[in-house]
Amino acid sequence: MEKIKKPKPSTYKAKYVVIGTGTAAFFAHRGITESDPDAQILLIGEEDHLPYMRTPLSKELVYADNEQAEYSFTDWGGHQRSLFYEDANFYKPVDFVNTSEPGTALLLGRKVVDMNIHRKRLLLSDGTIVNYEKCLIATGGTPKNLPVFESATGEVQQHVNLYRGINDYDKLVKLVHSPSVDNLTIVGGGFLGSELAVALAHVGKKHGVTVTQIYKEGGNMAKVLPKYLSEWSTDKVKNEGVNILSHTKIDSVKTTDDASKIELTLSSGETLTTDQVIVAVGIEPNVELAKKARLEIDPIKGGILVNAELEARSDLWVAGDVASFYDVVLGRRREEHHDHAVVSGRLAGENMAGKQKYYTHRSMFWSDLGPDIGYEAIGIVDSKLPTVGVWAAATAKDTPVGAGLTPEARGSDETSLVADDSQSGVPASVSNESVTSNLNKYGKGVVFYMRDDAVVGVVLWNVFNKIPLARKIINSQKKFTDTTELARLFKIHSEE
Amino acid sequence: MEKIKKPKPSTYKAKYVVIGTGTAAFFAHRGITESDPDAQILLIGEEDHLPYMRTPLSKELVYADNEQAEYSFTDWGGHQRSLFYEDANFYKPVDFVNTSEPGTALLLGRKVVDMNIHRKRLLLSDGTIVNYEKCLIATGGTPKNLPVFESATGEVQQHVNLYRGINDYDKLVKLVHSPSVDNLTIVGGGFLGSELAVALAHVGKKHGVTVTQIYKEGGNMAKVLPKYLSEWSTDKVKNEGVNILSHTKIDSVKTTDDASKIELTLSSGETLTTDQVIVAVGIEPNVELAKKARLEIDPIKGGILVNAELEARSDLWVAGDVASFYDVVLGRRREEHHDHAVVSGRLAGENMAGKQKYYTHRSMFWSDLGPDIGYEAIGIVDSKLPTVGVWAAATAKDTPVGAGLTPEARGSDETSLVADDSQSGVPASVSNESVTSNLNKYGKGVVFYMRDDAVVGVVLWNVFNKIPLARKIINSQKKFTDTTELARLFKIHSEE
Ligand SMILES: Cc1cc2nc3c(=O)[nH]c(=O)nc-3n(C[C@H](O)[C@H](O)[C@H](O)COP(=O)(O)OP(=O)(O)OC[C@H]3O[C@@H](n4cnc5c(N)ncnc54)[C@H](O)[C@@H]3O)c2cc1C
Ligand SMILES: Cc1cc2nc3c(=O)[nH]c(=O)nc-3n(C[C@H](O)[C@H](O)[C@H](O)COP(=O)(O)OP(=O)(O)OC[C@H]3O[C@@H](n4cnc5c(N)ncnc54)[C@H](O)[C@@H]3O)c2cc1C
Ligand SMILES: NC(=O)c1ccc[n+]([C@@H]2O[C@H](COP(=O)([O-])OP(=O)(O)OC[C@H]3O[C@@H](n4cnc5c(N)ncnc54)[C@H](O)[C@@H]3O)[C@@H](O)[C@H]2O)c1
Ligand SMILES: NC(=O)c1ccc[n+]([C@@H]2O[C@H](COP(=O)([O-])OP(=O)(O)OC[C@H]3O[C@@H](n4cnc5c(N)ncnc54)[C@H](O)[C@@H]3O)[C@@H](O)[C@H]2O)c1
Repeated sequence: MEKIKKPKPSTYKAKYVVIGTGTAAFFAHRGITESDPDAQILLIGEEDHLPYMRTPLSKELVYADNEQAEYSFTDWGGHQRSLFYEDANFYKPVDFVNTSEPGTALLLGRKVVDMNIHRKRLLLSDGTIVNYEKCLIATGGTPKNLPVFESATGEVQQHVNLYRGINDYDKLVKLVHSPSVDNLTIVGGGFLGSELAVALAHVGKKHGVTVTQIYKEGGNMAKVLPKYLSEWSTDKVKNEGVNILSHTKIDSVKTTDDASKIELTLSSGETLTTDQVIVAVGIEPNVELAKKARLEIDPIKGGILVNAELEARSDLWVAGDVASFYDVVLGRRREEHHDHAVVSGRLAGENMAGKQKYYTHRSMFWSDLGPDIGYEAIGIVDSKLPTVGVWAAATAKDTPVGAGLTPEARGSDETSLVADDSQSGVPASVSNESVTSNLNKYGKGVVFYMRDDAVVGVVLWNVFNKIPLARKIINSQKKFTDTTELARLFKIHSEE
Repeated sequence: MEKIKKPKPSTYKAKYVVIGTGTAAFFAHRGITESDPDAQILLIGEEDHLPYMRTPLSKELVYADNEQAEYSFTDWGGHQRSLFYEDANFYKPVDFVNTSEPGTALLLGRKVVDMNIHRKRLLLSDGTIVNYEKCLIATGGTPKNLPVFESATGEVQQHVNLYRGINDYDKLVKLVHSPSVDNLTIVGGGFLGSELAVALAHVGKKHGVTVTQIYKEGGNMAKVLPKYLSEWSTDKVKNEGVNILSHTKIDSVKTTDDASKIELTLSSGETLTTDQVIVAVGIEPNVELAKKARLEIDPIKGGILVNAELEARSDLWVAGDVASFYDVVLGRRREEHHDHAVVSGRLAGENMAGKQKYYTHRSMFWSDLGPDIGYEAIGIVDSKLPTVGVWAAATAKDTPVGAGLTPEARGSDETSLVADDSQSGVPASVSNESVTSNLNKYGKGVVFYMRDDAVVGVVLWNVFNKIPLARKIINSQKKFTDTTELARLFKIHSEE
C-alpha cells in the first residue's frame, strides 16, 4: 500500500465492492442484487459518468447527429433509449454503507490505485480507503495509440483522438459540426474503426465532412470475417462514401504550416491532410492494478487470468474486457464485447453472492455497418480459422433499411456453401474462384468457424434471432466432417 | 457420470475428500487437521499401500540391499525411518464418517474414475460413490514409457519396467538378488535414472550385476545442471561403476534367442544385451479425471491449472506433481518434487479448511548421487537459463562419505565465479575454456539461475542448510547485474 499523507482519508467498508463502473460492473451489481437482496454494493469508477452503455457511441448516437451531444437515442427498432443504465436517483449516497439498508452506491471520478488482496482493502486516487469482503475487478480496457502519434509534438497531438467513452463522443460531435472541419481520418479497420467510418460518412455528408479510413489489413474486419466477406464489406463501406486506404500504414505526421490541420505521410508514399485523426487500433486491458496486486496476467491473451467461475483468488473475481477466463468448451478466452460484459458481469456478481456457477452461457456480439447491414456472432470468430459459409438471397426483410445491393439467387437450392481456406489449408467445398464470382451473393448467410472439425464460432449475417441455435451447435462440440450437414442445420432460406 | 449397474454401491459422504494417497494427499490431511481439528477426511487411492514417501526408493532403500524388500531404512544421518508416514492404526475405518468423530480414513485400491464438480460427487472404480464438500485432486503422475518398448512384443515387455512406487521397488530388489541377472539398463538421464544408476551400481557389485545408463543428453541431469556440472557429475557416476552411454537412443529391441534377455540396438549402431530395462524418462501428470470434469489443463507445463491458492474451482483444489500453480514471484510453475508435494499439499489442506493462503513459501528439492555427493535446490532450476556458479574447495565435512576426488583451490580467494552461457548467449565472467580446465573444482558450490537479471533458482552443491538464504534471494526479486555481488551473498568459503 502506498503511504497516505492526507490527514484523514475517508474510509468505507462494504460487503461487495466493484472496481469500475462500466457495463461489467453494472451487471455485476444486478447479479449480486438478484442473488442477495440485502446486498450493499459500492461501485468505484474513474469516469465521471453514471454507468452507461458504449455501443451506441459508434452507431445510433452518431447517426442521430445532434449538435448538442445528447445521450439518448433511437435504436434501429425505433425505441427511445438512454445511454445510462439507471439515472442518478437509482443510486444511494455512499454513506448508506453505514446503515443496514440494501442498495448500490457510486464513487465516481476516482481511480483505485492500489489493492491489498490479503487485507481486502483498496486505496483510491484521492486517498479514500475501501474495505471489502468480496471484490470484482471490472476495469475494462484503454484504447491503444500508435507510436507515430505518441512520439509526435503536442501540436500534432491536438489533432489525434482515441475513442472509448462519452467524453470522446462529445468531442466528435463538436468536430462534425465545426464549419472548419473538412476531413476526419479513422485509423484502424476493426469494429470501432469500421462502425465509426460508416456512421461518420453518413452524417458527414450533411456537414461537408469527408471520411478517410486507413488500416494495414486488406479489408474491413479482416481479423474477424473470412476474406470474401471482408472484401464484400469493404465495398459496402466504400459505397457509404468512406475513402478507404487499405494495406496502408502511417509513416510520419506533422502539422500543416498554419497548424490548423495535420499531414500524414503514408506507406504508399502519398500524403493526406486531415483535420483530426481518430485512432481505433484496439485496446489494452487495464491490468496495472492487478499487476501491483501480483495477480496472474495471461501472457497470451492479455487480461487477468481467472478460472471458469471468473475467480482469480478467494473473494476476488474479474469480469468484462479485462478478464481472461476459462470456457470449458472453447478453452481460454478473452472477449471484448458488450454482451460479454453483461454475461460475465452478472455471473461474477452471482458468484460474489455465493452461487458457484461456472461460465456456460456463451455471450454474443453484434456489429452494424450502418442501418442496412448488421451481423451477430458467437464463439471464436477469428478469420485465421477455416470457415464454411451458407448463403441465401436476402430480401428487404433481411436488410431493414434499403441495402442498395441486389443479391442474386443462384441455383434452385438458394443456398450455397462457401469454404474459405485461404489461410488454413483445409479442403474447400467451393473453391476460391467461385467465391470471387459470387461476391454479390452475401446478402444473408451464416458463417461457421471450425476447429478440429467442430464449430467454435458462428457469424449470422443479416440473419437475426438465431443466436440460440448457434449457441447450441457450439455447445454440442459435435464433429462435422461433412459440411453440408452444417448447411442443413441452418436452413436460412426455408425458414423465412 | 457413468451408469452404475451393480445393485447397491456403497455411498460415503465426508466434508474433506482427497483423490490420491501420495505425499501431497497425506500432507493435505495434515494441513486440514491442523486448521480444523474436527475434520473428517477421506483419502482415496489407487495404490494398495498406506501413504508413503517415494524418495528412498531410488536411494537409501536400494543401498540397504535387503533381499526381502523392507520398507524401513537408515537415512544418511543414521536415523531409522519407515517409508510409511503413519502405520495402519493411525487411520480410522471408513465408516467413521457416519459418526461425528474427527479423523482420517483411507479407501485404498480404488481409482476415482469420474467426478461431478457441480454435484460434488465422485465415482470410484468399484462403483462406490463419495460425496464431498471440499475436494483435493492429488493424483500425481505416471511414468512415461518409450514407443520402442510400448510397441514391442509381450515377451520383450517382460524385460521392461517403469519405476514409481513400492511394487516397482519390490521387483527391482528381486532382480538384483537373482543369480541369473548380469546386467540392468537404466534408460533416462534425469533425477530417477541418475539416482538409480548410482545406487544399483553400488549394490550390484556385491551381486555380480553391472549397470548401464542410456540417455540422449550429453550428461547426467543435463536438463537441470549447467553443462560443466553435468559433465562433472557424469564423470562421478562413471566412477561409481555405471557404464554410461550418452547421446544415445534405442532404435529397436528384441529378445535373445532363448528369450531370457533382451537385445537393444542403439543409435550408435552398437547392440546391448541386458536382463532388464528400467525406463526413467519422466512422468505424465495424471489429468484424465480432470479432463473428464472439464477442468483446465495447462497447455504448456501440463497438469491441472490452479491459481496461487491452488484452487481450480470453488471447493476444489489441486496439489503436488499434478498441479500447475501460480507463483506470484516466479510465475506459472509445475514442480515434480517431494517437498513441493509436502508444501503444496499442506497449503491446499489449509485452504480447504478456510484459510485463504496463497503460495509464498517456495519448496526445495534434493538429489543424491550416492552418499558422497548431494545437492539441494530451490526455484526454477533449468539448464536453459544462464547460470553463475560460486565454487570453493570441498573438505571432508562437505562430502560426508569419502568423495574420491581432490578438488584444488585456485587463487587466494578460494572462491571462483563460473558463468555458463553455452545455451543463453549472456556474457560469462569465466569463459568455457577455463571451465574445462577447472573440472576438478566442483566439490562445493552454489549455482544461481538467472532470468531478467534476477535469481530465479539456486543449486546448493554439497552445501547444506542454506536453502533459507537462497529462498530469501529469490523472493527479493533483486536485480544483480554485477555477478560478484551474488558471490558475496554466499560466502561459502568463509562460513566453514
Ligand atoms: C464506441 C464503442 C462501441 C462499441 N460497440 C459495441 C458493440 O456494438 N457491440 C459489442 O458487443 N461491443 C461493443 N463495444 C465494446 C463494449 O462496449 C465493451 O466490450 C464493454 O464496454 C466492456 O465493458 P467493461 O465493463 O469490461 O469495460 P468498460 O466499459 O471499459 O468499463 C471499465 C470501467 O472501469 C474504469 N476503470 C478502469 N480502471 C479503473 C481503476 N483502477 N479504478 C476505477 N475505475 C477504473 C474505466 O474508467 C471504465 O469506466 C463498443 C465499445 C466502444 C468503445
Ligand atoms: C523413486 C522416486 C524417487 C524420488 N526421489 C525424490 C527426491 O529425492 N527428492 C524429491 O524432491 N522428489 C523425489 N521424487 C519425486 C516425488 O516423490 C514426487 O514429486 C511426489 O511423490 C509427488 O507427490 P504427489 O502426491 O503429487 O504424487 P504421487 O506421490 O504420485 O501420489 C499420487 C497418488 O495418487 C494416486 N492416484 C492417481 N490417480 C488416481 C485416481 N484417479 N484415483 C485414486 N488415486 C489416484 C496414485 O496411485 C498415487 O498413489 C521421487 C520420485 C520417485 C518415483
Ligand atoms: N460491435 C462491436 O462489438 C464493437 C464495436 C466497437 C468497438 N468494439 C470494441 O471496442 C474496442 C476498440 O475497437 P477497435 O476497433 O479499436 O479494436 P479491434 O481490436 O476490433 O480492431 C483493432 C484494429 O486495429 C488494427 N491494429 C492493431 N494494432 C495496430 C497497429 N500497431 N498499427 C496499425 N493497426 C493496428 C487491427 O489490425 C484492427 O484492424 C475493441 O475492444 C472492440 O472489440 C466492439
Ligand atoms: N531427487 C529428486 O527430486 C527426484 C528423484 C527421483 C525422481 N524424481 C521425480 O520422479 C519423476 C521421474 O524421474 P525421471 O528421472 O524419470 O524424470 P525427469 O523428468 O527428471 O527426467 C527425464 C529424463 O528422460 C529423458 N526423456 C524424456 N523424454 C524422453 C524420450 N522420449 N526419449 C528419451 N529420453 C527422454 C529426459 O531427457 C530426462 O533425461 C520426476 O517427476 C522426477 O522429478 C525426483
